[in-house]
Amino acid sequence: MTEAPARHAAPPPDIALAERLFAELAARTAARRGVTRASYGPGEQVAHDILAREGAALGLAVATDAARNLYLTLPGTGAGPGLIVGSHLDSVPLGGNYDGAAGVLMGLAVAAGLRAAGQAPPRDLTVMAIRAEESTWFAASYIGSRAAFGRLAAGELDGVCRAGDGMALGQAVAAAGGDPAALARGEARLDPARIAAFVEPHIEQGPVLEDRGLPVGIVTGIRGAFRHRAALCLGAYAHSGATPRAGRRDALRAVARLVVAMDAMWERRAAAGEDLTVTFGEIATDPDEAAFSKVAGRVAFTLDVRSDSDMTLAAVRGELAGLASAIAAAEGVRLDLGPETGTAPAAMDPGVTAALAAAAAAAGVPALAMPCGAGHDAAVFSQMGVPTGMLFVRNAHGSHNPDEAMAMADFAAAARVLAGFCLSPPCPR
Amino acid sequence: MTEAPARHAAPPPDIALAERLFAELAARTAARRGVTRASYGPGEQVAHDILAREGAALGLAVATDAARNLYLTLPGTGAGPGLIVGSHLDSVPLGGNYDGAAGVLMGLAVAAGLRAAGQAPPRDLTVMAIRAEESTWFAASYIGSRAAFGRLAAGELDGVCRAGDGMALGQAVAAAGGDPAALARGEARLDPARIAAFVEPHIEQGPVLEDRGLPVGIVTGIRGAFRHRAALCLGAYAHSGATPRAGRRDALRAVARLVVAMDAMWERRAAAGEDLTVTFGEIATDPDEAAFSKVAGRVAFTLDVRSDSDMTLAAVRGELAGLASAIAAAEGVRLDLGPETGTAPAAMDPGVTAALAAAAAAAGVPALAMPCGAGHDAAVFSQMGVPTGMLFVRNAHGSHNPDEAMAMADFAAAARVLAGFCLSPPCPR
Repeated sequence: MTEAPARHAAPPPDIALAERLFAELAARTAARRGVTRASYGPGEQVAHDILAREGAALGLAVATDAARNLYLTLPGTGAGPGLIVGSHLDSVPLGGNYDGAAGVLMGLAVAAGLRAAGQAPPRDLTVMAIRAEESTWFAASYIGSRAAFGRLAAGELDGVCRAGDGMALGQAVAAAGGDPAALARGEARLDPARIAAFVEPHIEQGPVLEDRGLPVGIVTGIRGAFRHRAALCLGAYAHSGATPRAGRRDALRAVARLVVAMDAMWERRAAAGEDLTVTFGEIATDPDEAAFSKVAGRVAFTLDVRSDSDMTLAAVRGELAGLASAIAAAEGVRLDLGPETGTAPAAMDPGVTAALAAAAAAAGVPALAMPCGAGHDAAVFSQMGVPTGMLFVRNAHGSHNPDEAMAMADFAAAARVLAGFCLSPPCPR
Repeated sequence: MTEAPARHAAPPPDIALAERLFAELAARTAARRGVTRASYGPGEQVAHDILAREGAALGLAVATDAARNLYLTLPGTGAGPGLIVGSHLDSVPLGGNYDGAAGVLMGLAVAAGLRAAGQAPPRDLTVMAIRAEESTWFAASYIGSRAAFGRLAAGELDGVCRAGDGMALGQAVAAAGGDPAALARGEARLDPARIAAFVEPHIEQGPVLEDRGLPVGIVTGIRGAFRHRAALCLGAYAHSGATPRAGRRDALRAVARLVVAMDAMWERRAAAGEDLTVTFGEIATDPDEAAFSKVAGRVAFTLDVRSDSDMTLAAVRGELAGLASAIAAAEGVRLDLGPETGTAPAAMDPGVTAALAAAAAAAGVPALAMPCGAGHDAAVFSQMGVPTGMLFVRNAHGSHNPDEAMAMADFAAAARVLAGFCLSPPCPR
């Protein structure tokens, strides 16, 4: 039998602090329904201000970088690479209060627990509040975490504009007090060699933990994605009653066929054991020209495809192209998928995953090893070579909506796992 | 051999007059694209004012009824039931200049030709400009023609409101100088027993004459329809990457399946020789809540089903209900088709159809006997027991759009047919 590594008893995280801050966040970023915290917008700034205030009140070192990511650091007893626990504070429009914020507040609750117990972690423990993760605002992925590593492309700062007000990313960074010129030069705040591990706690955005009756998940890998956010099908408007079947160029029927065909492909690949999701999330005929009594001449739609396998993503991309051109030919329409954006799948570090599992066992918290379907900043840390893990908290009703339902008891269980991990991280590199 | 009835040579219709009025209509009701002549709105009123002015200038008797339909009458030599030639003057939003107006101007061109030749028709010839035929404005069919027969329901006057500004129909009638109270009492302007025949000339709204290379069509029957203008599918918003296939309640996928299934049903019935069209003309996810990274929780759509057979409409209605409930169960969504509106199929009168065919032959105009896929005021006259016919004019690019393309030579050919018909209508009843 192998001896388990020496384990300090973790002091209890400050759950009351987290609860108070969740309430303040919900109240101060409330929207018509749920919360709205636009990337580099007023809601996100309120959240960052709250976290900076609380970090200072706890005596943590408060710092920001050129992208206005926020770092709250509790010094460790050892001098080696430190731990970072973090997530984002922005939300989708009319979103929920927990997606993103739960990870930052869990890190803060753990740091506050250590502070209250007068205990220092073995390494510097940094709680990181990351900017601009929700790509519904700027059509680019992982803006804040990439910026922290100096990996934001200069073209993104000028060329990617915010949904709603159209402000360019660089301008939005500057308006939040950041330094887009430094970002454009690729100046990095974080050095992968100086990070022992990164852990992102996050509410689960699907129903798996809820269905399995488990409070916590330990993520094994993050799905990659490819997306078409501005796909368009162009047919020909025609009278609904006077245009024979053969003469139609029906954009709506063509897109419906594509949806059904892509779904059949998903079903087939899922049955063969491939990891995959296929989602057509938005569709619309032209509100000016379409009518109940016309064949639809124009349909806009979006497509989001995710998998933990690069090979699956590539195969689906090829099959999509084939289906789109076959349907376009059969229906006499033009099917233009538009620009593709995406992210690569990211593996979690086995050492971090094992240490999280050990901490869960030590805390008596049942945890499920599971893949992560959504993209997260953790993917950037993983791709930068940082040993990375994610901790999921059970959550009903999914995320990206006002009905997110995370029980504070589950948050507290996950925080105990995180606290244990922070006192016994995996071996330094 | 039977002797053909004595046939007067028809004087040439005044095509130059029609051309001048088409140009004035296009200029004075121009929209961002094409024309907009809202039912009981400013564009329709401009058109009625132009027709009343021209009727008076030709010395025709000018009258209106409680619904502000317009009647321009050239007295006949005989005292029996008269002929009515008419169509509507409103248009869909951003519509074409010919749908509706061509029928009224063709009647006027024939009357003007008779006037210029100093010739009186055998019966009173009335050119009728009908109100409010395009049901995209008020969600009710054949408002003006039903009103002329006293068949508008009182509830429609109060309860049906105009798209765009929400004005109730009765209020809109009053604003145009009409008498909604008289309409509510069911007062009729027209008596079916006093009408020898009604003919509605109209541009073809499909591609059949264009494809066959023929200038004129003689309609054998008008398709009926049933419609769902406010159908709704309710599923559940969920994260696109984190929600497994089985856990989804995807409103967009469900509607796509319904579209594809209804299209397969159409294909099957068409192959079996049934007359049918099935059109999903509008679809939209919720612009506030939908996102490319969410499973769609709500999709609004419209459905329009047409056939010349009541039996087919009834069968399709039943099959639709079965498909909708099966798909809703399989997808875990609610599929609410919403209120149904519709019209019954209408047969054309064989005597009128034969007289139109004889007039075409006499004028040397090749004409095709064909069904009519769209609904028209002629259906109301038919259902009221008036011997009714329709005359189609070849038209490229369909109707209900700014690209309607009717050649004036085809209009002139049809007008010659109509003039011949007006001098030799079918035998009086």
